Amino acid sequence: MKRDLISIDQLSTSQIKDIHLLAKKYFKNPKFRSKLKGKLLINFFFENSTRTRLSFEIAAKRMGAEVVNVDVSLSSLKKGETIEDMAKTINAMRPDFVAIRHNASGIVDLLKKYISASLINAGDGTNEHPSQALLDSFVIWQNKGDLSKLKIAICGDVLHSRVARSNIKLLTKFGAKVVVITPPTLMPSGFKQWLKEKFNVEVFNDLQKGIAKADVVMMLRIQQERMLGAYIPSLGEYFKTFGLNHEKLKYAKQGALVMHPGPINRDVEISSNLADDENVSLILEQVEAGVAVRQALLQFLNK
Amino acid sequence: MKRDLISIDQLSTSQIKDIHLLAKKYFKNPKFRSKLKGKLLINFFFENSTRTRLSFEIAAKRMGAEVVNVDVSLSSLKKGETIEDMAKTINAMRPDFVAIRHNASGIVDLLKKYISASLINAGDGTNEHPSQALLDSFVIWQNKGDLSKLKIAICGDVLHSRVARSNIKLLTKFGAKVVVITPPTLMPSGFKQWLKEKFNVEVFNDLQKGIAKADVVMMLRIQQERMLGAYIPSLGEYFKTFGLNHEKLKYAKQGALVMHPGPINRDVEISSNLADDENVSLILEQVEAGVAVRQALLQFLNK
Amino acid sequence: MKRDLISIDQLSTSQIKDIHLLAKKYFKNPKFRSKLKGKLLINFFFENSTRTRLSFEIAAKRMGAEVVNVDVSLSSLKKGETIEDMAKTINAMRPDFVAIRHNASGIVDLLKKYISASLINAGDGTNEHPSQALLDSFVIWQNKGDLSKLKIAICGDVLHSRVARSNIKLLTKFGAKVVVITPPTLMPSGFKQWLKEKFNVEVFNDLQKGIAKADVVMMLRIQQERMLGAYIPSLGEYFKTFGLNHEKLKYAKQGALVMHPGPINRDVEISSNLADDENVSLILEQVEAGVAVRQALLQFLNK
Repeated sequence: MKRDLISIDQLSTSQIKDIHLLAKKYFKNPKFRSKLKGKLLINFFFENSTRTRLSFEIAAKRMGAEVVNVDVSLSSLKKGETIEDMAKTINAMRPDFVAIRHNASGIVDLLKKYISASLINAGDGTNEHPSQALLDSFVIWQNKGDLSKLKIAICGDVLHSRVARSNIKLLTKFGAKVVVITPPTLMPSGFKQWLKEKFNVEVFNDLQKGIAKADVVMMLRIQQERMLGAYIPSLGEYFKTFGLNHEKLKYAKQGALVMHPGPINRDVEISSNLADDENVSLILEQVEAGVAVRQALLQFLNK
Repeated sequence: MKRDLISIDQLSTSQIKDIHLLAKKYFKNPKFRSKLKGKLLINFFFENSTRTRLSFEIAAKRMGAEVVNVDVSLSSLKKGETIEDMAKTINAMRPDFVAIRHNASGIVDLLKKYISASLINAGDGTNEHPSQALLDSFVIWQNKGDLSKLKIAICGDVLHSRVARSNIKLLTKFGAKVVVITPPTLMPSGFKQWLKEKFNVEVFNDLQKGIAKADVVMMLRIQQERMLGAYIPSLGEYFKTFGLNHEKLKYAKQGALVMHPGPINRDVEISSNLADDENVSLILEQVEAGVAVRQALLQFLNK
Repeated sequence: MKRDLISIDQLSTSQIKDIHLLAKKYFKNPKFRSKLKGKLLINFFFENSTRTRLSFEIAAKRMGAEVVNVDVSLSSLKKGETIEDMAKTINAMRPDFVAIRHNASGIVDLLKKYISASLINAGDGTNEHPSQALLDSFVIWQNKGDLSKLKIAICGDVLHSRVARSNIKLLTKFGAKVVVITPPTLMPSGFKQWLKEKFNVEVFNDLQKGIAKADVVMMLRIQQERMLGAYIPSLGEYFKTFGLNHEKLKYAKQGALVMHPGPINRDVEISSNLADDENVSLILEQVEAGVAVRQALLQFLNK
């Protein structure tokens, strides 16, 4: 039986726990395995991405699968082929997994009907990035234990963040208390209401208030090219108001940990010192766990 | 013994049948094999190509070979190295197979003397694309049986099409009746004469007349950037005169099937409805068979 | 235990001999092996390079390792991530080897503290290219025997050549007599003094005098875009004065051989005839040996 992962909505908490348990094993021992020998992953990426593409590629190879990369900016798009036809073409080569990244929200779901392989959303526009949420929650669980007892503060441009969206869905599914902290210019009232009604997520415009009692503070990446001028007066201003450093972190719970999906803008979302403080920052552990969680995910989808 | 595949001229009908028989086995069962374990394919591509590069890469991997991709637009060309020196360099790394795609007709043959590996023409300018003809003929054989009894109509810019050239050579070798349908602006008299004298191929400027009694209609891709203005008044005009849809297909033999090497320009060469009609369109089967036929081809060349 | 190769300074002559001996075995028999099965090499390249990237990739695969390529011009640099953060991210994916090429001298050494994998300098600016020197010296040893008894003349833009720098270090370590031949505009007095005092390397501005009694003449690539106008009046002028051909080679020792790291500029550094003369030119053997030497190097580093 083949499974897709397009949205966190498709996973039950018990399935997520299964993936996490498997990931724990692979995280402890990163050796190459043969569980997925004879399987083929096609990375079908319409957006640049070092970390996600690499993570899927290495995960698949560690499981014994073969990987083929298609970077679409270099290819048929220029020839006027539709994305649907490209998806059908890819699928006709009989991969076992197809991981798609694209800047259009919802497009992976739209391509589902053309892909008989296990389809993985590797990030679609501002919609979802479910494997990132799986790895983030894995890292939280490894460091802070039972998700249902935790408060997680997500800080930044939540509106445009697929990482935030997938994490909110996953963490609240487990009963975690999630709050978001975001500039008011980036929080339309409809979105605020959706967060409240659907996920019981409260919105703060003040970092100190928002992170109060948080076990984990998850910082989001600022898309500088999109944000500057339009939503944010300056990067320095942003850091002052919404950036995190050791001093502000004191407002969170004692022992609170800090996450960031990367790549980080140093001293914009997070101070350099804090990002590099191994006692507090989980940033590199997220990358490391990313491979293990994707190994587990591929195995889960292949069942 | 090492073999090259630069032109369909190099293959006898019995060799083609051998490749097709082997491809049939691989088409039925796409599992990974170890027949070419310890062999190395270098894809040496000077033109963008998702489908052909992917197809060779997946084919080689399914046979157990290793694959290394060289995309030359990204590399030494900028450093002023000649293509001959690049070929020698590639060859000095001792690959077992080198697949070359380039926009200059005849260049693969020219590079032959520098490559001691099995050299595969993956498309050279407007000259030949022999692996495409191998897969097209495989799909025709699978769907319509004995090639010698069939009439195949090839429609589009035959003059500039390496796909057409390789298919005409292969299909007529088996005794198939081939006709081409093409705008008169794209059929210089010398070329027409060559088709007639060498392959007994008739030329039509009228789609309906050309496809009469055809078992298979093979549509060619329009190179929009080259064609518009120069040869063709407009895309809409082209579709009206040389595009295929269900209605025009009725002029062919009852049960006629439709092919296209892809990527397709929907509603330019072929109506969207027809391209997507699984009862008539073989387009995705061509992609699917492409991997199996290239698996067989690699094995054949390695003998 | 893990080892890095950032500079030739890190290797003793007996270690280099070990690598050469192993390379000899792999050069004789290029079959795929499983010595490095379950190991992962990440090629982390900030500069275009067909030959070096390919050589490392094929070497690793011939040893049974997996390879993942990261071409950074296509990736996170655009997102404003620092190279240190990129290195940490790459390392967090737990590779066994990381090969870095970058146009900034010294950067590989700088990144050492972020990489727990075996780190390989695949060329950093004008500083070092140690695997190239390992392969060049291997080819010299194979063709001319004991390095300590040889005179090697290096001709070209020695000042800006990482290939020259690594070769000077390696060859003089073995007691070879090295001289360099270079336009005076490319030989500042401090550099000249360093060559003399540190390596006992003499500098010539006259090709004929410099290559006198040389067993091997190693030509360097001219970076045309940097050189023209600034240091060199014209390419024709350069060839007349510093280019090598059969006639000038007579001034070297009888039986002298010619090397070039590639890609060559024909009739700029070296005449076409000489480059293609298999009796004298080792250029393709350098490429061929490059894979074998890198196989040996990976095994050596992994010990």
